[in-house]
Amino acid sequence: MSVTVYEPDVLVANGVVTPRGRLAVDAAGRVVATPPGAAAIRLEGKALLPGLVNAHSHAFQRVIRGRAEHLARGKSADDFWSWRETMYAAATALDPDGVELASRQAFVEMALAGVTAVGEFHYVHHQSDGTPYSDVHELARRVVKAARDVGLRIRLLRVAYARAGFQVAANPRQRRFLDPDAATALERTASLRRALQGDGLVSVGLAPHSVRAVPREWLEAFGASKEEVVHLHVAEQPAEIAACLTEHGRRPVELLADTGLLKRGTTLVHAIHLEDRERSLVGRSGAGVCACPTTEANLGDGVVAADALLAEGVPLSLGSDSHATIGLLEEARRLEEHLRLVRGRRAVLDPGDGEPHGLSARLFDFASRGGARALGLPGGSLAVGDPADFFTVALPPGLTAPLEAAVFGHAAVRDVAVEGRFLVRDGVHPLAAPTAIAFSQLVSRLQP
Amino acid sequence: MSVTVYEPDVLVANGVVTPRGRLAVDAAGRVVATPPGAAAIRLEGKALLPGLVNAHSHAFQRVIRGRAEHLARGKSADDFWSWRETMYAAATALDPDGVELASRQAFVEMALAGVTAVGEFHYVHHQSDGTPYSDVHELARRVVKAARDVGLRIRLLRVAYARAGFQVAANPRQRRFLDPDAATALERTASLRRALQGDGLVSVGLAPHSVRAVPREWLEAFGASKEEVVHLHVAEQPAEIAACLTEHGRRPVELLADTGLLKRGTTLVHAIHLEDRERSLVGRSGAGVCACPTTEANLGDGVVAADALLAEGVPLSLGSDSHATIGLLEEARRLEEHLRLVRGRRAVLDPGDGEPHGLSARLFDFASRGGARALGLPGGSLAVGDPADFFTVALPPGLTAPLEAAVFGHAAVRDVAVEGRFLVRDGVHPLAAPTAIAFSQLVSRLQP
Repeated sequence: MSVTVYEPDVLVANGVVTPRGRLAVDAAGRVVATPPGAAAIRLEGKALLPGLVNAHSHAFQRVIRGRAEHLARGKSADDFWSWRETMYAAATALDPDGVELASRQAFVEMALAGVTAVGEFHYVHHQSDGTPYSDVHELARRVVKAARDVGLRIRLLRVAYARAGFQVAANPRQRRFLDPDAATALERTASLRRALQGDGLVSVGLAPHSVRAVPREWLEAFGASKEEVVHLHVAEQPAEIAACLTEHGRRPVELLADTGLLKRGTTLVHAIHLEDRERSLVGRSGAGVCACPTTEANLGDGVVAADALLAEGVPLSLGSDSHATIGLLEEARRLEEHLRLVRGRRAVLDPGDGEPHGLSARLFDFASRGGARALGLPGGSLAVGDPADFFTVALPPGLTAPLEAAVFGHAAVRDVAVEGRFLVRDGVHPLAAPTAIAFSQLVSRLQP
Repeated sequence: MSVTVYEPDVLVANGVVTPRGRLAVDAAGRVVATPPGAAAIRLEGKALLPGLVNAHSHAFQRVIRGRAEHLARGKSADDFWSWRETMYAAATALDPDGVELASRQAFVEMALAGVTAVGEFHYVHHQSDGTPYSDVHELARRVVKAARDVGLRIRLLRVAYARAGFQVAANPRQRRFLDPDAATALERTASLRRALQGDGLVSVGLAPHSVRAVPREWLEAFGASKEEVVHLHVAEQPAEIAACLTEHGRRPVELLADTGLLKRGTTLVHAIHLEDRERSLVGRSGAGVCACPTTEANLGDGVVAADALLAEGVPLSLGSDSHATIGLLEEARRLEEHLRLVRGRRAVLDPGDGEPHGLSARLFDFASRGGARALGLPGGSLAVGDPADFFTVALPPGLTAPLEAAVFGHAAVRDVAVEGRFLVRDGVHPLAAPTAIAFSQLVSRLQP
């Protein structure tokens, strides 16, 4: 069986940093033990690290970058909810080709930033009037195609969306998102999974949008289902908490616990406005939290209390979410930096193990292994048996601290491989240039 | 007289955005009225904007990027003051060649990010034991040489540093910073100005380090001096405020007002921990504030209340300070984003003029004209008569919103010119590659 061996200046694998370490990859794209005496391909001036996993993406939102960064005429304030109107306008305007193209642009940028796998929280399902496409999975297929054309591993998290909110009038701009009932949402998730089987790099999960957008019966149905990977938006904005208390008499995390959804395999996206007892509930449940710091800053959501969550044993992952920025290493850095701003001290998330690379290693882990865990995907650490999903960064001669270089040093991403197959080589992705041109034409057409 | 005319896809000059606008530059590097019928050099796919002005830089601190991002062994917390020990170790270790090389690396990165002018807050003056070099201005000259080799305009803000603090024992690691008395500090500032005259792109200002590092008599002497451009660190950390209250019975901004330093021409760097009445004092005085958001996040300093400062009419500028990141456009975006995090809403700094590019234009202005104003430098807006200090960004076809693309769109910087002379062309600075190699060797030698 043919094995390829790489020898970078520094290898980060299985949590260990090894100068001139070797990574062996078999023909199936798995990490294997390095055969004795094997010739290695030298990756000079590069560090090789486990691929980054983007646990929360809305790929199509890439089209509104820079277009919602101002006060609307006649308004005196802007917030998450007014931003959402711009986002809904984009969601309404995109046809299947537009969804695929916007997704391809976002995924190319992810690949160029070292991402090897993405969790796409996908909620635009139907035609603009709400009628399903002749293939009910048309748009999900387009998003998956975009990811696979780029070369990424993808977990399509199919969103279940029931309503505008508790006692909130239907919003016509949400028509493309809706399923008629929980059973249909579950059935469509299962049928999508069947439709996409055959490509080992594609998988499907369930994403009840939020406790705002689905009623209690849906949450109960999902909690009783066999779905193993479940993602939800939770506690991103204070108004959601207030609405949940009004409707259910309890806070969102408590509602999830009551309905059987707070468990291992579930990831709470954002989880910003939590009380201490909610964080304890999450910690005891085995559920994880996905922070999206650059989006949370852009939307004025607030800071994920990652320190308090870690104290409760909650596993963390990261997402680029709205794609105001695309870079998991920036998300990792910003998670720590936002906490520094509000705590008034440094190295807030340092594990305190006395290791000079302890903080960088932990932040990197959120961006790699943490994401793989959240998406129920293999790997994230380049252990023997893992898929060979990795990336390299330029490491100047003489430096041997790849995790600091990656997380805090703004090191340039050079190569990216999924199952040992390179999507990016020396900073170039073959789809980047043609996609950028077509994408700019799309954005230009969407301008008001 | 020969005039060169540029015609980008979009020109931003004098606060106006003009598709296919023309910028005419005379042989002396000044913006002039476009001669009728002149042939133009097309800058296709690019927007041309006023050069960015980095109002607060400690260039040599580039060497510690990524090296102080963890808890020291045996410590349970890290903060500004423990970070400072790492920074002092670097300041102690660098010889003149090292200072010049580290500065060149920082300045090359600035140029690549669209910066055309820098305010270098320069405090490492002497040999490691505190003895002045045979040329007392040796290190200032090295920093200026680095900036001029790269091609940047520079205001060297020569720091006056008297002591470790009020009733604080002398710190041997500060020996390289000290002047014996205020008169000598002023005399050295004046003699440095004389020594550097002849290069119109170089100027000198005075930088009393902080109210911690200089006593009241020094502040009074500086307030009574003829120095027109004065920068100080103010209210970066709560501990400084407490020490100032103990020593002087008043807060830092009040002390500056009492000593004649709070006036037009003065820039307060950080100004984070201010009370409302201090912001009013600053507003009435004509002094400005320089925010350094990425450093303020890295160091856990807190968020500059730019909204409250603007309400008092305080002019704002931006700096990359410790160079944890180098990018004035990122500083502009982060100023707004940090406010969104703590205010819980969006478009916090939007001027409310109903313009769809109002917020981007304002943030861009802080990064360009605001910096020029803070440094007492000409230009910042490409008006007729200004120096032709500009940069271009890639602007995809069909897009006509260059300020949004620059501030929020992560547009790639392509060309950078100072007085009409290009330092960067299509993303390349000729010194970038050789400097990066030498710099990495320097950092490698400095590793503990």
